[in-house]
Amino acid sequence: MVSTGSTTGGGLSTRRVVAVPELVDQARSGKARAVGRLISLVEDGSPQLREVMAALAPHVGRAHVVGVTGAPGVGKSTSTNALVRSWRSQGKRVAVLAVDPSSPYSGGALLGDRVRMGDHATDRDVYIRSMASRGHLGGLAWAAPQAVRVLDAAGFDVVLLETVGVGQSEVEVAGAADTTVVLLAPGMGDGIQAAKAGILEVGDVYVVNKADRPEAATVRRDLRSMLALTERRDAAWRPPVLLMSAQSGEGVEEVTEALDRHLAQAQESGDLERRRLRRARAEVEALAVDALRRQWEGVGSDGRVDDLAAQVAEGRLDPYAAADALLG
Amino acid sequence: MVSTGSTTGGGLSTRRVVAVPELVDQARSGKARAVGRLISLVEDGSPQLREVMAALAPHVGRAHVVGVTGAPGVGKSTSTNALVRSWRSQGKRVAVLAVDPSSPYSGGALLGDRVRMGDHATDRDVYIRSMASRGHLGGLAWAAPQAVRVLDAAGFDVVLLETVGVGQSEVEVAGAADTTVVLLAPGMGDGIQAAKAGILEVGDVYVVNKADRPEAATVRRDLRSMLALTERRDAAWRPPVLLMSAQSGEGVEEVTEALDRHLAQAQESGDLERRRLRRARAEVEALAVDALRRQWEGVGSDGRVDDLAAQVAEGRLDPYAAADALLG
Repeated sequence: MVSTGSTTGGGLSTRRVVAVPELVDQARSGKARAVGRLISLVEDGSPQLREVMAALAPHVGRAHVVGVTGAPGVGKSTSTNALVRSWRSQGKRVAVLAVDPSSPYSGGALLGDRVRMGDHATDRDVYIRSMASRGHLGGLAWAAPQAVRVLDAAGFDVVLLETVGVGQSEVEVAGAADTTVVLLAPGMGDGIQAAKAGILEVGDVYVVNKADRPEAATVRRDLRSMLALTERRDAAWRPPVLLMSAQSGEGVEEVTEALDRHLAQAQESGDLERRRLRRARAEVEALAVDALRRQWEGVGSDGRVDDLAAQVAEGRLDPYAAADALLG
Repeated sequence: MVSTGSTTGGGLSTRRVVAVPELVDQARSGKARAVGRLISLVEDGSPQLREVMAALAPHVGRAHVVGVTGAPGVGKSTSTNALVRSWRSQGKRVAVLAVDPSSPYSGGALLGDRVRMGDHATDRDVYIRSMASRGHLGGLAWAAPQAVRVLDAAGFDVVLLETVGVGQSEVEVAGAADTTVVLLAPGMGDGIQAAKAGILEVGDVYVVNKADRPEAATVRRDLRSMLALTERRDAAWRPPVLLMSAQSGEGVEEVTEALDRHLAQAQESGDLERRRLRRARAEVEALAVDALRRQWEGVGSDGRVDDLAAQVAEGRLDPYAAADALLG
């Protein structure tokens, strides 16, 4: 029943206009289907988002937004499930948003989500959703923050934002979260990986998963020494490096405890407020830029950007002068 | 001798102001050191870029810009070297720009470049350079196109833009190139990889490297059937799927021939002009957006974006209304 009724036809263009105030009310009263439809509006870049975000605004800022990132193969899904289980045992409502920066498609995500739900499938206080981030959405820049807004307003205590650590995604996840967890695992050339991908700067909590493997302790030690040499944006918080086995459940509680500790510390130091301010600024700027691009490229515009681009392509104008002309 | 004299101190802030017209003249007359300094200006986001790009504008648009992408492990460096060798045997001057989207650092790139030069180290008509793309540069959005502009104006016949295929980078490379080569190799789960990463839409020429391995023919066949099912932006060009062994050199000439054929066909069909127009537009827009962001966040501004972000973070304003206010 979950997916029926959300479209009248098959394509995006025929998606039925929904009554936003109703949908927001339903989402806030815990209806998973309404939450799902709001996130679909985000995913589709619906024109109704403006109304949705206005309706959600007074209700956001309560959830603990936790970013989880790690290279393919570190056991992200299993770890996420283990963390969800730990939070649930504390009575918390948990939403998981899995963003795949390499996938332009959201099709098929539903099936994946159901498989992933696993032991949480019948738990009304757990919501799991995959989201495509590529294409017209501008990547994580505003789609993920908006989806987080939906889940936050829907009253989840924890919103876990999961992404695979490739390219710039782990930096973007860190930008969108209150607390960022970086997952590693033995046997993946982690030392070089860590230094290369810039994860040393973004993690608030580091977790070496698959801790039952003998090399886990070495990974931890290496990571600790690299972290000691890294300049961090927040000197007051020394990110712990924890061992965990998501499979067996060992060490999972220590991780959720560390996440709570980080939130409390960030609240106290003012770092949380600074992060949320930075996040809101990035989101506002991304929306403003998006609006400008539409204006520049839109039907009914004077085609100025195309004319300028033609002059640049032909070498009659340099790109800076063209940018000046576009803005001026 | 290559790297001395480009700075007076150690840090970016003390980088000596250079005489742009001189540097451009030297680069155009084939001086590798001048080319390198111009690309460093791009990498640093130097304020002098404006002057550099104005001086380069009349001299661009001659090089064949070839993008090469592929997952880690397909043999990108070896393939690039093999292609360079093939072009050199035709008497062409070749520049290679290797962009690593996962690396925030350019430090150490020099050593890597020298190692990579390999048999081209003493060849004045080959230029190889790595570039970091992360950080303040806005990724590939304008740094790579500007570096390509430098190499194009410096008179290279072919500019090979190499990037590792993760996240969005292969789409960005395709956007920055006249012709895009997608590299695959047997034994990497290519079928799923291909479908997932969206490479079926971006390649103009597909190359299955390591063709000496028995499964290469299977990869080729699978890829061909997937391509047959894919809607392409340019119906006139049916991308070939070629077998190559970069190590032994077998099949390399067929690849450079296919690249030449694609260029000729794109020129004739008008697709090349459309691509270059699209590329110029993206570059102009990226520079305009960058200028706006500076304005919004800049010292001496009225702090409006921070004020708006605070209202959004506190739930007093929704992000769309804030974006409107920022623009209005």
